[in-house]
Amino acid sequence: MVMEKITARTNDKIKHAVRLGESASLRKEAGEFFLEGARLCFDAVQTGIEIKQAFFTAKALWKYSEYTECIIAKSGICYEISAEVSQKLSDTENPQGVFCICAIRNDVSTQLNPKGKYIALENLQDPSNLGAVCRSAEALGLDGLIVSGGCDIYNPKALRAAMGSSLRMPVITSDNLPALLKEAEALGMQTLASVPRSTATDIRRISMEGGVICCVGNEGSGLSEEAIGACGALVTIPMSGRAESFNASAAAAILAWELKR
Amino acid sequence: MVMEKITARTNDKIKHAVRLGESASLRKEAGEFFLEGARLCFDAVQTGIEIKQAFFTAKALWKYSEYTECIIAKSGICYEISAEVSQKLSDTENPQGVFCICAIRNDVSTQLNPKGKYIALENLQDPSNLGAVCRSAEALGLDGLIVSGGCDIYNPKALRAAMGSSLRMPVITSDNLPALLKEAEALGMQTLASVPRSTATDIRRISMEGGVICCVGNEGSGLSEEAIGACGALVTIPMSGRAESFNASAAAAILAWELKR
Repeated sequence: MVMEKITARTNDKIKHAVRLGESASLRKEAGEFFLEGARLCFDAVQTGIEIKQAFFTAKALWKYSEYTECIIAKSGICYEISAEVSQKLSDTENPQGVFCICAIRNDVSTQLNPKGKYIALENLQDPSNLGAVCRSAEALGLDGLIVSGGCDIYNPKALRAAMGSSLRMPVITSDNLPALLKEAEALGMQTLASVPRSTATDIRRISMEGGVICCVGNEGSGLSEEAIGACGALVTIPMSGRAESFNASAAAAILAWELKR
Repeated sequence: MVMEKITARTNDKIKHAVRLGESASLRKEAGEFFLEGARLCFDAVQTGIEIKQAFFTAKALWKYSEYTECIIAKSGICYEISAEVSQKLSDTENPQGVFCICAIRNDVSTQLNPKGKYIALENLQDPSNLGAVCRSAEALGLDGLIVSGGCDIYNPKALRAAMGSSLRMPVITSDNLPALLKEAEALGMQTLASVPRSTATDIRRISMEGGVICCVGNEGSGLSEEAIGACGALVTIPMSGRAESFNASAAAAILAWELKR
């Protein structure tokens, strides 16, 4: 197979790919996202994600051939890029030289399963935390993740930290978490707001029968008053020592673990 | 109080501070570490850490006066620095303008409590993960943390992610984790190697009576064969879905939670 070569960092396709990585609004508008890494791009193909364009360095084509051959077989258009272009595209210091522009899938159910277990993330600031929560949620067998308040699973750092889990599991995006929580309650689901308050119910004392959504808030400011107000119960992970709270992804891991106990 | 002013980024004290942030071996050699942030420096003072030098921008002196006044009262020498110097010292885009050079404390017990609960981290690569584990360990009331294989709690990113917990709780540094695990076993402690293997014992099925050390390995390669071989049991967090493992700090949070159940 002969690929068109791109050696100029100013090439329009390269500029578009870089902008897709940078801009959540462009991702939404174009219905596309940018993915980096041999394994991650391979995983996307395996998951059935549509690969619109793929970019490889010559070195990556032999070094990661087990992945790239599979990616090439499923990709719309493939380009060979120079090491310089690879560095321009990459979020890392030592890029593997494998990149894809993928279609945001719209074939994944965004319906809540009334019997399902979910973590809802509100306004998480650190995309690495968002990705780590996706990974924990999938590993623990949750039914899905709910994200709101600007959490974007297609942020490149979130995609990397999720190691493919965010592309495999159902992720429901909501512009109005309180409304979604009220809908869930109407479906008979339990809705829990996790807060670092000693007055809230110990998460171990909550029955996890039936459908449950447990909400985790922003790293600095926690859950919004609106989200807390929409939940049926306040829960907490009891703390000792002088620590005031957990890292958001550590808290979500413990809460997801308890959801599935 | 009149402080000496530093406006040159090439000032020797500034260069030393920057190198302390960058170099683990210099930190070890000098017995000092570099700390950034108003709250974190204040917490260090509260914890009884010796502040050898403190650096403040003029703006920080009034903006964070509740913290800086306390830091100044306990500091060896204080300097007023320009915004340019602050940017040079900082690890962040928008520095608060508060920095300290602290003495590595040697008054914290490095003895294992034979009845205590510990997480041991081997060769963690990401300092943010290290810091997040410190934070979880303190919040959950573990007796301490054991770090080996180049994990340095005084790395600036680790210090920031730990939010002061690594300065408050006992952290035992070991150059030889397998030997430490064997000593712990001789003290009557349980030693657990956490591995992503379905054949290992479900962590929920381990009795947590008495002293327990649970080991967590490197993000990419997991625990070394030597550490695994030195442990009394292999344990795992059961996984479903296609995820192959957890983020190290998520796994440590769940394991610490189970240690204290």
